Amino acid sequence: MPTFVQILDFIGTFAFAISGIRLASAKRFDWFGAYVVGLVTAIGGGTIRDLLLGVTPGWMQDPIYLICTGLALLTVILFGRHLIHLHNTFFVFDSVGLALFTVVGVGKSIALGYPFWVAIVMGTLTGAAGGVIRDVLINEIPLIFRKEIYAMACVVGGVIYWICYSFNVDPILTQIVSGVGVFMTRILAVKYHICLPTLKGEPTE
Amino acid sequence: MPTFVQILDFIGTFAFAISGIRLASAKRFDWFGAYVVGLVTAIGGGTIRDLLLGVTPGWMQDPIYLICTGLALLTVILFGRHLIHLHNTFFVFDSVGLALFTVVGVGKSIALGYPFWVAIVMGTLTGAAGGVIRDVLINEIPLIFRKEIYAMACVVGGVIYWICYSFNVDPILTQIVSGVGVFMTRILAVKYHICLPTLKGEPTE
Amino acid sequence: MPTFVQILDFIGTFAFAISGIRLASAKRFDWFGAYVVGLVTAIGGGTIRDLLLGVTPGWMQDPIYLICTGLALLTVILFGRHLIHLHNTFFVFDSVGLALFTVVGVGKSIALGYPFWVAIVMGTLTGAAGGVIRDVLINEIPLIFRKEIYAMACVVGGVIYWICYSFNVDPILTQIVSGVGVFMTRILAVKYHICLPTLKGEPTE
Repeated sequence: MPTFVQILDFIGTFAFAISGIRLASAKRFDWFGAYVVGLVTAIGGGTIRDLLLGVTPGWMQDPIYLICTGLALLTVILFGRHLIHLHNTFFVFDSVGLALFTVVGVGKSIALGYPFWVAIVMGTLTGAAGGVIRDVLINEIPLIFRKEIYAMACVVGGVIYWICYSFNVDPILTQIVSGVGVFMTRILAVKYHICLPTLKGEPTE
Repeated sequence: MPTFVQILDFIGTFAFAISGIRLASAKRFDWFGAYVVGLVTAIGGGTIRDLLLGVTPGWMQDPIYLICTGLALLTVILFGRHLIHLHNTFFVFDSVGLALFTVVGVGKSIALGYPFWVAIVMGTLTGAAGGVIRDVLINEIPLIFRKEIYAMACVVGGVIYWICYSFNVDPILTQIVSGVGVFMTRILAVKYHICLPTLKGEPTE
Repeated sequence: MPTFVQILDFIGTFAFAISGIRLASAKRFDWFGAYVVGLVTAIGGGTIRDLLLGVTPGWMQDPIYLICTGLALLTVILFGRHLIHLHNTFFVFDSVGLALFTVVGVGKSIALGYPFWVAIVMGTLTGAAGGVIRDVLINEIPLIFRKEIYAMACVVGGVIYWICYSFNVDPILTQIVSGVGVFMTRILAVKYHICLPTLKGEPTE
């Protein structure tokens, strides 16, 4: 029986892979290209984190991530035209993935003995770096650098984790509160169109 | 005396470097930029594989890859205009490189004790990831995601390797059959214009 | 009290971060995006080097790089319009950073027992790879592949380091001479418009 966290992990991976595959599809990638972009969106952040932490990436220890991305590709191939109506569902799934990935990234770094500021960076990388690699591969400026609160939600979740940890809150409760923090930050930011300020461009030299 | 595999490795590295340098030249890169793009095309896939496997990249243990890329740059500088007539030769060389790199990647992963699905991913990364980094550096959408069977040939070769291994085929024979599988898949796909299906784009949100 | 090298390191990190943040600002990135691009410009090269060398990246051991990038962001937010008048100052700072990063990269590789040709590559990566990642993230062709002597200055510094080391020159003096070599190569190349030759493009196939 899969645990609750494993189910959330599967949902998050699926939603991230779908986001990559749909963007690849808008660029008319073939099935293989779409699969790779979906996979990289789902596992890219965790892979960079694990390389930096010096541990073996999770997707090399369990084929579930490759399988899950395959199911996501099949879903887009079969139901591509109808997925657009599920936009809100995928938005919620994606936010669940973002929250879970962040909490996993922060927790893994702390378990390996890294200080909290490293853990917050690692949580943010886990949640948001996959989307950056996805945008590089489809040759677009990474979305998260210009639009909406996305990676900032990971930072918020990481800081909440830190505060809970400092006050000796129960580990499970810490993870739940931190994950809910990421999820709510993302949802509220989109609902109320909360953005970070943009830098004023200067004429390029 | 170099072994047969070392000669194939040199040919593959040279062909991959030439492909990177020629694309860099079409973007009017200077010699240094062209060298870097050529080098990354040749060693990028193997480097990512080795980072993921947790071993020291091969090009850090033997200067032959840097030297070979230097010879490729010299070749393009001296004979640039005439290389276009050698298109078919380079296509064969490139396919030899693809086959060898794939077999090396699969074999190295198995030798380190990884399961077969990881080995197939690593073989594909070794063969195809260098070209992806090349295309990112010259600011183009990676070619292998949209056109022709390329990385899929690596997957085919990896699966052949797996089947042979499961049936206890002699290791040398396994490598030859797997490499020929990559080579023939690539050659036949280009000759008969076999492509993977393309995803139907949906309007971007 | 910070040492002289630490002060140079801070100046170099600050200048590299400023260069990333200013380019991000020209693309109208938000504060978070600009911070990430600035950070990656400053620490990207050293991070790739440390992953290849198999050691923990420096920025994960000391928060000074994250803080320094934060100060660079604050500087651009507060004084953005006026920074353009400090163009020459930042050019000098940037060249100081390039020189220091190169020397640190070469020295670290030698201390870990790598041969000199690896050390020269690592010195060049430390100095120049951050700017390449920066340009990939803002979706431009990397500047250093097409314009001016930049990464070649790192190679020159690495070769000087090698020659001094071979003649048993005092280590501190070796580092100073090598760093001054990078700095002067960069300054003179820009002052006298010295460029590497460009490859003649051929019609793309």
